[in-house]
Amino acid sequence: MVKQERAARTRRSLIHAAAEVFAEVGFVPATLNVISARAGVSNGALHFHFANKAMLAEAVEAEAAETMHRLTEAARGRHGDSLQALVDAMHALLGALADDIVVRAGFELAGDVARRAHSPLRQEWQRWVEDRLRRAERTGALAEGVSWKDAACVVVAVTAGLEVLGGQDISWLSRQSVSRVWALLLPLLTDQRAPGALVSAGSRSPATALRAQPQLTQPEM
Amino acid sequence: MVKQERAARTRRSLIHAAAEVFAEVGFVPATLNVISARAGVSNGALHFHFANKAMLAEAVEAEAAETMHRLTEAARGRHGDSLQALVDAMHALLGALADDIVVRAGFELAGDVARRAHSPLRQEWQRWVEDRLRRAERTGALAEGVSWKDAACVVVAVTAGLEVLGGQDISWLSRQSVSRVWALLLPLLTDQRAPGALVSAGSRSPATALRAQPQLTQPEM
Repeated sequence: MVKQERAARTRRSLIHAAAEVFAEVGFVPATLNVISARAGVSNGALHFHFANKAMLAEAVEAEAAETMHRLTEAARGRHGDSLQALVDAMHALLGALADDIVVRAGFELAGDVARRAHSPLRQEWQRWVEDRLRRAERTGALAEGVSWKDAACVVVAVTAGLEVLGGQDISWLSRQSVSRVWALLLPLLTDQRAPGALVSAGSRSPATALRAQPQLTQPEM
Repeated sequence: MVKQERAARTRRSLIHAAAEVFAEVGFVPATLNVISARAGVSNGALHFHFANKAMLAEAVEAEAAETMHRLTEAARGRHGDSLQALVDAMHALLGALADDIVVRAGFELAGDVARRAHSPLRQEWQRWVEDRLRRAERTGALAEGVSWKDAACVVVAVTAGLEVLGGQDISWLSRQSVSRVWALLLPLLTDQRAPGALVSAGSRSPATALRAQPQLTQPEM
């Protein structure tokens, strides 16, 4: 059992170290030597867990996808079919891109010419956004005359844009930047007659919003 | 003179071949051998024009920046301070990303972790967008209550998003996709009392719109 715990910890260290190296230099220039040294484990230990660099990249992408899934489901759990779920999920995702190196590296790999054909991350976000907006249209939460496809196109493009611009300048990932987007988009997308105002800054206060750990947070109002 | 022409042609071939290789494999894995072979010139000829790979990347970025500058200035020339200039310029830029390998490669390099600190492309687009929207606010072309900064944030993020998503699936760069974005954003950004309807599909018809060569096109209406 102690052995299993140690193996799990080594695996986590390797994924974290690989994420750092992939985010710093990209997939092709990253070497297994640098990754194992960064993780503080031997080459042998690395090869026990991962046969090659592609498997490490897959592990980073899988963990990033899992985090994204947790964030989106948390937002959906809090707000159901309301568009507030979409607002909160985008805040949470871009917060994770700023704070969580595995999420950052996962999306960097999704944009890396050497990995993009294999990465499911952006498509998974797109599917989730489309599903939310399709349901919003069906339940009347989307403003009349707005097609869910048009709305999804803009929301997916804005997310990808903030994500890549945030790789150069982290202020694009800030709460202020995401709030700015939603302050502009919400009046357009939401039916003004629907009950309950939506909050472009996300439904949780900055102070309590440990965005990757929804169970610790409090609703803002 | 013939010699100068031949040198200029070789230089263009090298930039084009470098753009292809950078777009296919990224900056770090690209080799000068592959680029010179692709251009059909000797290694010696390559080194006569470019001392190293970074200089080739700079030449690709500079040519992409020049094309973007031509497209944005053409749109501004046609529409002045009207937001139609912004709509048309985004159509033209994303069209060039689909059709012009040097523009595509220039933006791929701007997203490449090995080059992004050096690439001016996304920042130049951002500055142009901000300048257009600041002027639109000043001249009353922007809807009341909309800040040019918020609008610029969304327009710049959407452009970057379509650009990177288009690297995986070219349909994001299509006229339909860009029109979809503007169909949603224009009613929000423009003062409905201002004279003259703006066209989300761009002010030029698909049939005549050779988007990178504005001098060949006709206004649609």
